[in-house]
Amino acid sequence: MKIIVQKFGGTSVANLECMQRVKEKVLRALNQGSKVAVVLSAMAGETNRLIELAKTWSSRPDPAEMDVLMATGEQTSVALFSMLLKDAGIKARSLLGYQIPIRTDKEFGRARILDIDEDRLRSYFKNYDVLVVAGFQGCDCEGRITTLGRGGSDTSAVALAAALKADLCEIYTDVDGVYTTDPNICPSARRIERIAYEEMLEMASMGAKVLQIRSVEFAKKYNVPVYVRSTFTDGPGTLVTQEDESMEAAMVSGIAYDKDQARVTLVDVYDEPGIAAKIFEPIAAAGIVVDMIVQNPSREGRTDMTFTVPKGDIDKTVEIISKIKGEIGAKEVLTDRNVSKVSVIGVGMRNHSGVAAIAFSALKNENINILIISTSEIKISCLIEEKYTELAVRTLHEAFGLDKEPEKTC
Amino acid sequence: MKIIVQKFGGTSVANLECMQRVKEKVLRALNQGSKVAVVLSAMAGETNRLIELAKTWSSRPDPAEMDVLMATGEQTSVALFSMLLKDAGIKARSLLGYQIPIRTDKEFGRARILDIDEDRLRSYFKNYDVLVVAGFQGCDCEGRITTLGRGGSDTSAVALAAALKADLCEIYTDVDGVYTTDPNICPSARRIERIAYEEMLEMASMGAKVLQIRSVEFAKKYNVPVYVRSTFTDGPGTLVTQEDESMEAAMVSGIAYDKDQARVTLVDVYDEPGIAAKIFEPIAAAGIVVDMIVQNPSREGRTDMTFTVPKGDIDKTVEIISKIKGEIGAKEVLTDRNVSKVSVIGVGMRNHSGVAAIAFSALKNENINILIISTSEIKISCLIEEKYTELAVRTLHEAFGLDKEPEKTC
Repeated sequence: MKIIVQKFGGTSVANLECMQRVKEKVLRALNQGSKVAVVLSAMAGETNRLIELAKTWSSRPDPAEMDVLMATGEQTSVALFSMLLKDAGIKARSLLGYQIPIRTDKEFGRARILDIDEDRLRSYFKNYDVLVVAGFQGCDCEGRITTLGRGGSDTSAVALAAALKADLCEIYTDVDGVYTTDPNICPSARRIERIAYEEMLEMASMGAKVLQIRSVEFAKKYNVPVYVRSTFTDGPGTLVTQEDESMEAAMVSGIAYDKDQARVTLVDVYDEPGIAAKIFEPIAAAGIVVDMIVQNPSREGRTDMTFTVPKGDIDKTVEIISKIKGEIGAKEVLTDRNVSKVSVIGVGMRNHSGVAAIAFSALKNENINILIISTSEIKISCLIEEKYTELAVRTLHEAFGLDKEPEKTC
Repeated sequence: MKIIVQKFGGTSVANLECMQRVKEKVLRALNQGSKVAVVLSAMAGETNRLIELAKTWSSRPDPAEMDVLMATGEQTSVALFSMLLKDAGIKARSLLGYQIPIRTDKEFGRARILDIDEDRLRSYFKNYDVLVVAGFQGCDCEGRITTLGRGGSDTSAVALAAALKADLCEIYTDVDGVYTTDPNICPSARRIERIAYEEMLEMASMGAKVLQIRSVEFAKKYNVPVYVRSTFTDGPGTLVTQEDESMEAAMVSGIAYDKDQARVTLVDVYDEPGIAAKIFEPIAAAGIVVDMIVQNPSREGRTDMTFTVPKGDIDKTVEIISKIKGEIGAKEVLTDRNVSKVSVIGVGMRNHSGVAAIAFSALKNENINILIISTSEIKISCLIEEKYTELAVRTLHEAFGLDKEPEKTC
């Protein structure tokens, strides 16, 4: 039994006309001999409408009841779409989170999937050719409704594909795939045909919002091939899959950027064991995510500690630091909101030397100063002045030849 | 543990302001030391909105999926109301049909309650003081969502009260109780303080649409006292309960009427065994509900058969009869749409003779001709010309002294 999971987002199910288009995609898969699990989001605008409704009722709505309310959005989508399929004579039915069940933890509003009853789910295909599954929702061990947080329908789809051991998980969206960089600032950006899970994680976490990051983690963990494609065109998309030779042949797969960065420098803090913990523990406790960190070489028992946080968290960070200023010996706290991060990403870096050198040289040629460098096995990130972001992205994109068709390896 | 069930209809939960009023009613019951199960309908207008939405999707929406869609209405109500209670510091939670569960048959759109898990339901009161239950919905043995049909929330409330062995089931609505007759046509109509289940069934089935008829059957079966009262005033209401002495003391409790009646007369059909079955079996098979039936005394092996059906079914009825006209020997089929039924109702009839005589005499005094008479143990119904309906109701109401305060028996 061939099984395909197809996920459609809010804009794909916004109205009857859109849903007819979705129906065609489902029919095509059916006609190719597959059983289909269709995962739907709430109709575009519905989730926001429900949030606004709850806000008029309560300034801080109870999270568990909020999930009961939010779940009606996807419930409406799957009921309506199932009606369409039934009218077309297709053996189909809707499935809500608790009916499968998609078991999650009790973190209402941002629950994590713990378990899906695979046998029960597969058994539905005995009587139905298409299962229309409400995305974004599950239930806890007591049967209470939970939701997976924004973008959770992607995760629902990938989790279902894993549970069903599906041949493919298609994520239909309003773009036709993952690009080498943001086409809005770099017109020569190209659609990537295949991208490794690890690369996609780096791209997603840096603002390439095609796939929700948790869904990619899930896909990687269960080795689910995810095909990102457009609801509105019939062209090819991007396959997110395991690393393979063709990917390694390319030195770099994409350029990402993140403008939501602010820099903090603590001048002349004591250079002693445990100093980093003293600084970053209270920041982490406040729920602030620190991204890049550099510590300068010591001079006379003192050092400078520089790190970045999201722009919106800078005031809170400074407030926290001011409380421990004496303890860590900081003579000064410098901040800079006008910074951004550009990143060069590619699993091919593992096999190619000199990637960093090319990146640095390209930026230098445009007189872009690098404020902080941070590297991982498959990524080089540079903090730069924010005003150079677009120029840096275009420069790096060209420097690594991403505007040209990749060479075929086989 | 004292338990009260309170049910609020669509107009009672129409918006935040209405729900605040509902909250006050719940708080009052809580402060009197009760645990409370609150049963809510969908917000006024929501059910119709969902039906309209489905109609744009499908001319004949799949009934099972229709129920998935419809159930979002009550789901929204209970989520929002639970938020209000939580904000007020009350230990409350929402419960959907499948979470209790309220087990029903598989008749989507008009399911019947088969079973409620009483122990599980009561056990929720260990952790919560208020359970906010979605009315109108249940689930079948496979966990699929079902709905109980229009007005089903009344039935939900009574069924929960029975399962919880509640001390009282309060049905809040937009009128303050059950009246001796329709106040719109008889200004001297009075609110009835206590009414027997049997009387209420007769009243309800004849258009006194305060309580859904099925909920009264349920209440009677499980002996649940149901108190009908107004959400919008604090005055007393009507207690629907077992027959008692005070009810029997009154000869008549109320006057009902039904304008949705049409008369059919089959002239000179064969007066032979099985003739009634030959006539009424095909009519029943077509889903047409026959109300009153009279057969004239036989003359020369022939008789006239007269009966009433809802006005909307008259054409279909004539069509069915025309097919069997030869077989039953009918010489002529007469129809009359301009008829209505007035009924005198009261458990006291069992102990009082002469009720029929008073009714017939009162109608005769106004020159109202009686076309058909039909009686039961607690009811006398007369078919009359439709134009006399209001006059007949007022006449009968006065003839039985219903405009006066009843005598107290104890």
